[in-house]
Amino acid sequence: MKVSVLGYGTVGVGVCSMLEAAPGLELRYVLVRPGKADKPFKVTSIEEICADPETDAVAEVMGGLEPAYSYVSAALRAGKHVVTSNKALVAAHGPELASLAAEKGVGFLFSAACGGAVPFLHNLALAAESDRILSIGGILNGTTNFMLDAMQRRSMDYAEALREAQYLGYAEADPTADVSGLDALRKIMLGCAVAYDKLPCDGFSLEGIESVTAEDVKHFQAKDLVLRLLVSGGESENGSIYAFVQPCLLPASSPEASVLNNFNMAKYRGENAGDIIFIGQGAGRFPTASAVVRDISDILHGRREMMKASCVRVAADNSAVKKRYYVRLPEVCADSLPFAEKELDGNVVRGVTEEIAVTEMHAKAKELRLGGAAVFFAAMEG
Amino acid sequence: MKVSVLGYGTVGVGVCSMLEAAPGLELRYVLVRPGKADKPFKVTSIEEICADPETDAVAEVMGGLEPAYSYVSAALRAGKHVVTSNKALVAAHGPELASLAAEKGVGFLFSAACGGAVPFLHNLALAAESDRILSIGGILNGTTNFMLDAMQRRSMDYAEALREAQYLGYAEADPTADVSGLDALRKIMLGCAVAYDKLPCDGFSLEGIESVTAEDVKHFQAKDLVLRLLVSGGESENGSIYAFVQPCLLPASSPEASVLNNFNMAKYRGENAGDIIFIGQGAGRFPTASAVVRDISDILHGRREMMKASCVRVAADNSAVKKRYYVRLPEVCADSLPFAEKELDGNVVRGVTEEIAVTEMHAKAKELRLGGAAVFFAAMEG
Repeated sequence: MKVSVLGYGTVGVGVCSMLEAAPGLELRYVLVRPGKADKPFKVTSIEEICADPETDAVAEVMGGLEPAYSYVSAALRAGKHVVTSNKALVAAHGPELASLAAEKGVGFLFSAACGGAVPFLHNLALAAESDRILSIGGILNGTTNFMLDAMQRRSMDYAEALREAQYLGYAEADPTADVSGLDALRKIMLGCAVAYDKLPCDGFSLEGIESVTAEDVKHFQAKDLVLRLLVSGGESENGSIYAFVQPCLLPASSPEASVLNNFNMAKYRGENAGDIIFIGQGAGRFPTASAVVRDISDILHGRREMMKASCVRVAADNSAVKKRYYVRLPEVCADSLPFAEKELDGNVVRGVTEEIAVTEMHAKAKELRLGGAAVFFAAMEG
Repeated sequence: MKVSVLGYGTVGVGVCSMLEAAPGLELRYVLVRPGKADKPFKVTSIEEICADPETDAVAEVMGGLEPAYSYVSAALRAGKHVVTSNKALVAAHGPELASLAAEKGVGFLFSAACGGAVPFLHNLALAAESDRILSIGGILNGTTNFMLDAMQRRSMDYAEALREAQYLGYAEADPTADVSGLDALRKIMLGCAVAYDKLPCDGFSLEGIESVTAEDVKHFQAKDLVLRLLVSGGESENGSIYAFVQPCLLPASSPEASVLNNFNMAKYRGENAGDIIFIGQGAGRFPTASAVVRDISDILHGRREMMKASCVRVAADNSAVKKRYYVRLPEVCADSLPFAEKELDGNVVRGVTEEIAVTEMHAKAKELRLGGAAVFFAAMEG
């Protein structure tokens, strides 16, 4: 199978290198910006690739919405299989691209868009064909996991952990998409689309790691608990989809606690299979390229879809999911939540609530913060 | 796709139930023993299934070598795809069955034979097409993991842990295949065949968990180490295959340490992907059935092979792999190993060796035990 690659950045270079080494796969063209076509296999227009009868499949690793969306649409219309690592693209335009691929009878796979090398969406799609997926989730942002791990195992404060993540290239100069949980949220959107044929596009509950302090970490460690930023998704009994991102406290013996540095972990719970957990590198040139190339192999063997053409957009509803929350907030706000246990620590209260809805906790924190209160919360898991 | 099932035991009942629920899959016949065909879809001869033009695929979940080997061969010769959960069958006859399947152009997959619900062989086969697999391994026997976990987290001694495993149905009345490591060894044989196109059939180093005592566990725990029975396989620089099973000591923060109860964990290290880890239920009706049915879906999508027709049998060579070993042995034998550090504990010595070959450690333990010495050893990992 001959593959043309759109983009020659970090992941693109990795994909080209792997295609040149893999038996049965062959690198055809690489689409680069005008002026960068310094080698014979590099081209500067998507039209050349779409018109090329030798190109069987296209790997899109440019990132961003445009021109990626136009290019991927053009490739599918030209009857090329498409594999992409672009989570923003699939989160925004997945259903249209899946429909177009189905109409043209070509493959459209995007394993690398969720969890880097972690083969989550591939396995989730396969499992969903014969098992009922009860829930999905995990640690799907390596930057924040690196920071939380550094704060816990190396006693760094938030600012130090962020600086080190930036120095190592794990966090961008503007780290907002990572630390706010938005990057992880996009990945759970894709997971829901693959597992439930429903792409949640609204109604999310999103809490990142910006509120955690070194002082908080000391309190968790005294209780042998580990803090992780977890994504969760699933289908409620009424058929609505829930999807949220929030910090969670877990026992030190849990699989999540063993996910160190910038690793990712994804899991699904199948009605028959039980819990299936996947751990690996969530980013980086070769890890991400490995997922792109595995999808190409999968197409070569006959697989065509990961998101169905029938996938519909829905609003998430997180009001039916309840959790107990660890909360730290000013003493004067202590009555605003139903604490099951709490203690005074200087002028702040730390405690664990009764079970409350995810939406209620997120809304309450937002309200208190608007009033100027510093609030940290994390769901108690495991 | 219509599927006939060979065997109606624990896993067979699960497969039938999943086939009846999965869209696109349909249960056709179930082969049962004469006298057990109490329902219209049950038959008592393999010939009926082979001659049935409606049967597209056969799921063999009988276990054992015969009649499973004859039946699977007959089904492949009749042009039926075959999926099996039978590790003994694939370890003994895999290459012949893979050749026969390739000759007939049908699928032959056996994910459920290694790790139950854990989708290890499926992903390993896919990854091996485009990535160089540097090593494989993990925790592939749930019975022994349950026992080691009970000894460590619940302070049971070996006999208590075995009794509880038997009571819960995790261990058989004769637990030898599990506690000796033989069951786990068969699984790493299959892993090597999938990853390297070479099925190791001889030259193994095999050490189970029979030598560990409650006293040993106290010593590991004092050092914050966790004991697991790990399998390891890989290809040495000279092209030889190594494959061994032995107890290993790992940091409490390692992914292996988070594998509790009777769960399994498998991993591969890809040159590009890095470490990819899979965790799930390694046995049980529905977990194992879920792996069988995923393989059927995979065949429906076009995949045909997991072990290549070109797979050859080889002898394993573990002499090039070196480890540091934790060893407990009688004081009088202390000079028989190159200890880097050791301490006297009553009349036994506990210590950690310099790096020595896996074959050397296993041979030395065998020699000392023949001389009547009680020896425990575990490789230091991580």
